[in-house]
Amino acid sequence: MYGEMGFGLKVMVLGADGYIGWPLSLHLLALGHEVIGVDNFSRRRRVREVGARSAISLGNPYERYGRVKDLYPGKFDWRVNDLLDGEEIDYLFKYYKPDAVVHLAEQPSAPYSHIDRDHAVETQINNTIGTVNVLFAMKNHAPNCHLIKLGTMGEYGTPNIDIGEGYLTVEHRGRKNTLPFPKQAGSWYHQTKVFDSHNIRFACKIWGLRSTDIMQGVLYGVVTDEMLLEGSADYDQTLMTRFDFDEYFGTALNRFMAQAVIGFPLTVYGKGYQKRGYLALRDAIQCLTIALEKPPEEGKYRVWNQFDECYTVLELADKVKQVGKEFGLDVTIHNISNPRVEAEEHYYNPDRQHLPDHGFKPTYTLEDELRIMFPILIKNRRRIEERKDRILPTHDYRRTSQT
Amino acid sequence: MYGEMGFGLKVMVLGADGYIGWPLSLHLLALGHEVIGVDNFSRRRRVREVGARSAISLGNPYERYGRVKDLYPGKFDWRVNDLLDGEEIDYLFKYYKPDAVVHLAEQPSAPYSHIDRDHAVETQINNTIGTVNVLFAMKNHAPNCHLIKLGTMGEYGTPNIDIGEGYLTVEHRGRKNTLPFPKQAGSWYHQTKVFDSHNIRFACKIWGLRSTDIMQGVLYGVVTDEMLLEGSADYDQTLMTRFDFDEYFGTALNRFMAQAVIGFPLTVYGKGYQKRGYLALRDAIQCLTIALEKPPEEGKYRVWNQFDECYTVLELADKVKQVGKEFGLDVTIHNISNPRVEAEEHYYNPDRQHLPDHGFKPTYTLEDELRIMFPILIKNRRRIEERKDRILPTHDYRRTSQT
Repeated sequence: MYGEMGFGLKVMVLGADGYIGWPLSLHLLALGHEVIGVDNFSRRRRVREVGARSAISLGNPYERYGRVKDLYPGKFDWRVNDLLDGEEIDYLFKYYKPDAVVHLAEQPSAPYSHIDRDHAVETQINNTIGTVNVLFAMKNHAPNCHLIKLGTMGEYGTPNIDIGEGYLTVEHRGRKNTLPFPKQAGSWYHQTKVFDSHNIRFACKIWGLRSTDIMQGVLYGVVTDEMLLEGSADYDQTLMTRFDFDEYFGTALNRFMAQAVIGFPLTVYGKGYQKRGYLALRDAIQCLTIALEKPPEEGKYRVWNQFDECYTVLELADKVKQVGKEFGLDVTIHNISNPRVEAEEHYYNPDRQHLPDHGFKPTYTLEDELRIMFPILIKNRRRIEERKDRILPTHDYRRTSQT
Repeated sequence: MYGEMGFGLKVMVLGADGYIGWPLSLHLLALGHEVIGVDNFSRRRRVREVGARSAISLGNPYERYGRVKDLYPGKFDWRVNDLLDGEEIDYLFKYYKPDAVVHLAEQPSAPYSHIDRDHAVETQINNTIGTVNVLFAMKNHAPNCHLIKLGTMGEYGTPNIDIGEGYLTVEHRGRKNTLPFPKQAGSWYHQTKVFDSHNIRFACKIWGLRSTDIMQGVLYGVVTDEMLLEGSADYDQTLMTRFDFDEYFGTALNRFMAQAVIGFPLTVYGKGYQKRGYLALRDAIQCLTIALEKPPEEGKYRVWNQFDECYTVLELADKVKQVGKEFGLDVTIHNISNPRVEAEEHYYNPDRQHLPDHGFKPTYTLEDELRIMFPILIKNRRRIEERKDRILPTHDYRRTSQT
């Protein structure tokens, strides 16, 4: 039965070639689930488009998928599909009838969506319509399928009250109501995650679908246990996930680590007091697996805030500096003008109760994970060095290009 | 100076061929403003697509626009453009540099968006991206332009508390914050209006644009004073606006009136206790004009709830029945299964303070307007009779077609 532990689920991973989708697929396979990986390689294409690359070489998809097919025979299938092709997605669900679908297949970069109008439009269509197509396909062919959708903590913005998990109970003029938590997203990209949340909640209501909408914090980390070579402390190069460090696809932490490795000062946007929730990649995968194995009931739309600890950008930079020192790196911190329009000093206190209630226990701390990542990045120093001109911001949110 | 009374503004009306856009353009011209009407005739196309037509014959666009150019020489221009064409829209704003833009150019039907996946997707792309293109064009070429955007009261859904005008001040765990009012839209179409609100608020924040986002109730009425033949109580056929009565583009009131005119029972969805805000077309135009002539300051995003009175669907049917009797119509009311997924009994108490504060005074009551409309519709009885098979609902929100 779906949802009982120990029995393999048929899981469709949308965005299986991506940063999270790849290690998640490996983890699910290791647990005995079946995985259908779907991707259109748009992340690879977009990173190439902005002249950047992953610090870790990924090799070509065929090699990568072939290796997984060898490791987990009969358990892994993969399909090259674009979520914008509604008919093809309909067919995918008709053919596989998955028990669950983890939807990670969106354009994930705020600054990329701010390059110009075309990138804003492409991001809003790609993400919003891709999700609508998934919802229709589920309704048509797999109405009991559990949709686990990757949203972001950024949907909430930084309100001056505690951030609930998807909902807010208010008393207003003597009446009480639990309402969707008001969203204040800070980029064209973040808006798409808000739109998805609206559309998914609505589809659950009218069609009785079930979904877990994950408001995820910023991830860090680049390897998971399933990437280890058997009987070794080394990693299988073919199984590693991407590490982007450019201004578009690299998180602040990734950019800091890349800068530390090549001896550049860490460039903090503004004062660096912007506070966000963070989570190790391996813990994100733990969380997604928990959601998968403990699905909501039919017709239920539930929202989980998924992060471990909150840090300011400056605290991140400090941690990179400290741990960098252990690896002989001489790290300095440099404040630059903030290209984003965001409050630099603000209240930030999001709830995080559903995941611990469902058994989530954080494993590695940020420092632990930095200690694992630094040697890998130092080994790839040349790949970073060759793209060091892609780290600093060139696009300002206030001055999006006219075309 | 923009915003001072008595001085003509250059107003771009997007959707100028539509139900509201047309009489609004006439009204603004009569007040001495300049109007650039923009339309791609998608409303005409979509109504034809569903096999329906306006009860009032509109004639072809060239005739219609030519008549207005004759009436207001040098004050009226029109352009056939699609808001999805970002480059063309950019050029429009570069060329005209309007003082204000009234954006009414969206696919406006909830049931149309529920025909099937393609219609849901088309509606979400058309409305959301059209608005994004307008925002970029404003930013590039008319950053002081005032965007008046037609949203809908349906963005709010039917929460169990009073509905604020765009915002809700909450106290939560001892902290206080004014947040965007949580939205719970009830159709793929209504979601697009929510998405627009998010995008517009964001654009005002990052680019300092100014906008009035109108949460409008359901309109009724079909003629305005500017359509009267000079020195006569009769209407100029070329200047009249559309009256749709089909299941997709007709409001409940329009469908009731059409049914009354051809001697059919009024078909109320479910029990008919669904309560909504309503407003006469001529009062909507009064409101939009007020917004236009009293613009918000730079960078300000303001939200106005725009309706006059709240009625249940059953009350509407009763009023049609009562007033119909005055015109010799024998009207009966019949409850049918509700094709929509909506609460049929619910609290409904939206605020409406900004418009009265800015000088809005409702003119005609619903009964007044019904008395003006009935003779016009009775004169067009044959046009309704010939499309009577388009009135009853054929699409259920729970059972949207698979393709």
